[in-house]
Amino acid sequence: MNLDAASSVPLYEQIYKYIKKDIQNGGLPFKKRLPSTRQLAKYLQVSRTTVDLAYAQLVSEGYIESVPCKGYFVCELEGLYRLESNYMPENISIDMELKKPAYDFSPNGVDLNSFPQNIWRRLSKNILLEEKQLLFQLGDPQGEWKLRQTVAGYLHQARGVEASPEQIVIGAGNDFLLLLLCSMFGAGKTLAMESPTYKKAYDLFRNLSNEVRIVEMDTQGMRTDRLAETDAQIAYVMPSHQYPLGIVMPVKRRMQLLAWAAAAPGRYIIEDDYDSEFRYRGKPIPALQGYDRHDRVIYIGTFSKSIAPAIRVSYMVLPKHLLGLYRERGSGISCTVSRIDQMLIERFLDEGHYERHLNKMRAIYKGRHDVLLEELRAFRGICRISGENAGVHILLTFTNGMRQDEAIRLAEEQGVRVYGLSGYFVGEAQPAQADTVILGYANLPEEEIRVAAASLKKAWGIQK
Amino acid sequence: MNLDAASSVPLYEQIYKYIKKDIQNGGLPFKKRLPSTRQLAKYLQVSRTTVDLAYAQLVSEGYIESVPCKGYFVCELEGLYRLESNYMPENISIDMELKKPAYDFSPNGVDLNSFPQNIWRRLSKNILLEEKQLLFQLGDPQGEWKLRQTVAGYLHQARGVEASPEQIVIGAGNDFLLLLLCSMFGAGKTLAMESPTYKKAYDLFRNLSNEVRIVEMDTQGMRTDRLAETDAQIAYVMPSHQYPLGIVMPVKRRMQLLAWAAAAPGRYIIEDDYDSEFRYRGKPIPALQGYDRHDRVIYIGTFSKSIAPAIRVSYMVLPKHLLGLYRERGSGISCTVSRIDQMLIERFLDEGHYERHLNKMRAIYKGRHDVLLEELRAFRGICRISGENAGVHILLTFTNGMRQDEAIRLAEEQGVRVYGLSGYFVGEAQPAQADTVILGYANLPEEEIRVAAASLKKAWGIQK
Repeated sequence: MNLDAASSVPLYEQIYKYIKKDIQNGGLPFKKRLPSTRQLAKYLQVSRTTVDLAYAQLVSEGYIESVPCKGYFVCELEGLYRLESNYMPENISIDMELKKPAYDFSPNGVDLNSFPQNIWRRLSKNILLEEKQLLFQLGDPQGEWKLRQTVAGYLHQARGVEASPEQIVIGAGNDFLLLLLCSMFGAGKTLAMESPTYKKAYDLFRNLSNEVRIVEMDTQGMRTDRLAETDAQIAYVMPSHQYPLGIVMPVKRRMQLLAWAAAAPGRYIIEDDYDSEFRYRGKPIPALQGYDRHDRVIYIGTFSKSIAPAIRVSYMVLPKHLLGLYRERGSGISCTVSRIDQMLIERFLDEGHYERHLNKMRAIYKGRHDVLLEELRAFRGICRISGENAGVHILLTFTNGMRQDEAIRLAEEQGVRVYGLSGYFVGEAQPAQADTVILGYANLPEEEIRVAAASLKKAWGIQK
Repeated sequence: MNLDAASSVPLYEQIYKYIKKDIQNGGLPFKKRLPSTRQLAKYLQVSRTTVDLAYAQLVSEGYIESVPCKGYFVCELEGLYRLESNYMPENISIDMELKKPAYDFSPNGVDLNSFPQNIWRRLSKNILLEEKQLLFQLGDPQGEWKLRQTVAGYLHQARGVEASPEQIVIGAGNDFLLLLLCSMFGAGKTLAMESPTYKKAYDLFRNLSNEVRIVEMDTQGMRTDRLAETDAQIAYVMPSHQYPLGIVMPVKRRMQLLAWAAAAPGRYIIEDDYDSEFRYRGKPIPALQGYDRHDRVIYIGTFSKSIAPAIRVSYMVLPKHLLGLYRERGSGISCTVSRIDQMLIERFLDEGHYERHLNKMRAIYKGRHDVLLEELRAFRGICRISGENAGVHILLTFTNGMRQDEAIRLAEEQGVRVYGLSGYFVGEAQPAQADTVILGYANLPEEEIRVAAASLKKAWGIQK
C-alpha cells in the first residue's frame, strides 16, 4: 500500500479505498481477518486514529465487520453495490439543435440576465445550513403550509385573489397542475376552450379522454353567449392576457363568464393566469377569481414565467367546496416540488426579493415593449398590431396580403426569427387565413430589437 | 432622512428604501423632480457613488426615471408591485397531528440520520456557482441528457436494466410518472393489479377512468394463469419486493409474466421497482426489464426511498417503440424536476457518493432487520413472519386467532405503533381475515427496536 502524504485525498481515505478495492478484487476474500488497527498503523507509519477512521468507513459501508475480541473480518460481498462511474451506455448523438437565428423573437423567452443569482445562492445555502432533517422528510402533498401562506398573501395583494392557504396546491408547473385537476375530475368531462390557445392544455385534456368544445372569441375574449350554447362543464380561459392573442378580458365579460358558471351546478372556470405579471398600461385588472362569489373559479399561476423557466413552481387555488374532492382524489399524489425549492421561493417572497425582481423585470420589459412599438410604427402600412397591453409578446396581422409563411421565410433570410400564429389553433377551428406572426421580446435587449426591426423592414420591403 | 452609518444595511440601500417609501406614500408625487445626485450627496454627507447606487436601484425597479440633461423624475406608480410581507391571510390552525407513539414501526420510514448533508450542500453550492444561466432555462421535458446517461449506467450496473438515455424520462415522483403514463395511454385502459398493493397507484388509475382487474397472488406473486384469464392490457407489478407483502418474484414467474405480455399486441408490464435497493439474502435478482426481449416492460424507480423522501426524483424507462407515443402525447409536459436538482443527483451518482450511501444504508438497515428478526423469535408461537428478504418492513400474521385491530390497539397501549395490512387491499378482493400487521424498521435504531419488541411482547401476552 503506497500512501501519498502530499495528496489532497486524506490518508484515511487512501487506506479505505485501497482495502475496499482489494476486497472487491477478491484479494481479501470473505471471512478473511484484517490486521488489527495497531498493526496496520505501525506498518504504514500513520496514527492509529487514521486506520480507525478507514476501518470505520469500511464497516459503515458493509465491506468489513468487527467481531468483538477477534478483530475485523471481510463481509460477504453479495448485495453490496459497486458502481463504476466510468460506465457509459451506448451514446446517441442529440445534436439536432436548429440553426439559431441572429435575432429570435421567441414568444416563450424570459430575460435571465437579471436573475438574482447571488440572492438565490445565498438563500439556498442558508436553507441547507439551517434546516436539518426536515428538508428531506416527505412534506404535505399540497405543499408547505408557510409557502402556501406566503403565496396566498402575494396573490391577494398582487392579483386580488381571495384564498386561504388551505385552498392552495403547489405543483411542479402548470401542466402538472392541469394533470392533477384532470385526475380529480376524472375523464369524460366536457371542456370549453378558445382557439388559438395554449395548445399543451388542449392536448392534455384530450389525452385524458375529455371532450373539448372550441368557443368563438371576439375582441373581449371567449364569447359567453356561444359558451352557453355548448354542453361544456368547465371553461378554460386566460383573462389577464389570452395566449397567444394577448386579449385582456374586460370586467363586463368576466362577469358574464362568472354568471355562466353560477347558472348550473358542476360548472367551473379554470383561470390560467400564466403571464399576468407584466402590464404596461392602466391599472391591473384583478383576477377573475377575486370577483367570484359562487366558488366556481380554479385559479392557476406560476413562478416559471416571472422568475425563471427552470423554477418549476406553480400554484393552484381551489374553490373551498372542491377541497373534499382534492383530499379524496388528488392528495394521494405527493407534492412534486422539493421542500428546499419551496422554502427558497417562500423566502424569496417574504424577504422582498420578489417584489424588487418583478418591478425590475417590468421596467426592463416595458423598455423593450416601448422600443419595439416605436420601431413598428414604420410597419403600419402593411400590418396591424395587437396584444400590446400586457405580457411579453405582440402580434402583427398583415393587411397587405402577405402570408404568415412568407413573412417568416423572408425574416429568416435576414437572420430574424418570428413565429406564426397558425400553430396555436386547435380542434376544427382552423384560422380563416394565416396572416399573423408573433413577436416575443422578453429575451432581446433594446439595441437588438432596433437592429432586428431594421432587418424586418428590409425583409418585408418597408421603405424607411 | 436619518442615515445610520453603523447599521448593517448599506448606506445606499438606506437611501433607496427611504425614497422608495416616500414615493409609495405619495410624499414624492408622479413627475416630481428629485435632487441631483451631487446635491443629495452633499446634503447627506455621503459619497456621490452612494447616491448614484441608490438612484440606479430606483431606476431599475421603475420608481424613478432619468431624463437626460434634466435629472431624475418620479414615475407613475400604476402597475408597480408593492408587496407587504407582513400581510397574513386568515390563519387556519393545522394542529391535527396525531399523538405520536414512543416507537413507530411506520412502513414508509427512511433513516435520515445518515443523509450526507455536507456533500449535498457542497454539490448544491458548486452547481449554483459554476453554472450560470443554463440552470434557469427550461430544460428537456424528458430530463437532462447527462442525468439520463448516468441513470442508465446506474440501472445497468445495479438492476440489470437495459436502457439507453433516450428511453429514460425523469419526473418528480413515481405518482407523477404514473400520471404521465396514463396521459400517454389515454383513459379507458384495463389494468391488472395485485391486492393488497400500492393503493395510490390503484386510485390514480381509477381516477383517470381506467378499469382495474384484481389478479390473485400466490407465494410467488401475481398468478400469470389468472392474469391470462382477464382482459387486462397492462399489468402493474413490483417483482423485486411486492408492496406490502414483500414477495420477491422468482425468475420463473418473471418469465411467465413476460410471456403473457409478448403473447398479444398492446400488452405492457409496469414494473414498479420502488424499494428494490435493499436486499439481505442471496444474489440480487435483476429487474424484469433486463429479461425482456419483446420491449414490453415500462420500468419505474425512484431516489425518494434510497436517498430521502423529499428528493422528488424518479425515473421511467420506456420501451423503444413507445418513444414515439411519448413524444406525441407526453413530451408536452415540461420536466417536473428542476435542473438544479437534476444536476445534483447526477453528480451525487457520478462522484461515487450514491454507491457509498447505498452500502451504508444497506448496512444500517441490515443491522435493524437482523435485530428485529432476532427479537421476533420469541413471537413464533403466535405468528408467522413474511417479507423478510428485502425492503425495510416485514409482516406478522397471527396464528393464535388475534385480529389485526386488536393487535394494533394492544400495541398502541404500550406506546408502539404497528400497521394493519387490510388498508392495502383494493377492489372487491377484501382479505378473508384481517390477521396481519406490518412492521417497518427503517426509522428505528437497533436499541429502540429491542425496547419496542419487549413492549410488543407485553402487549400481545408473550412469555419471555
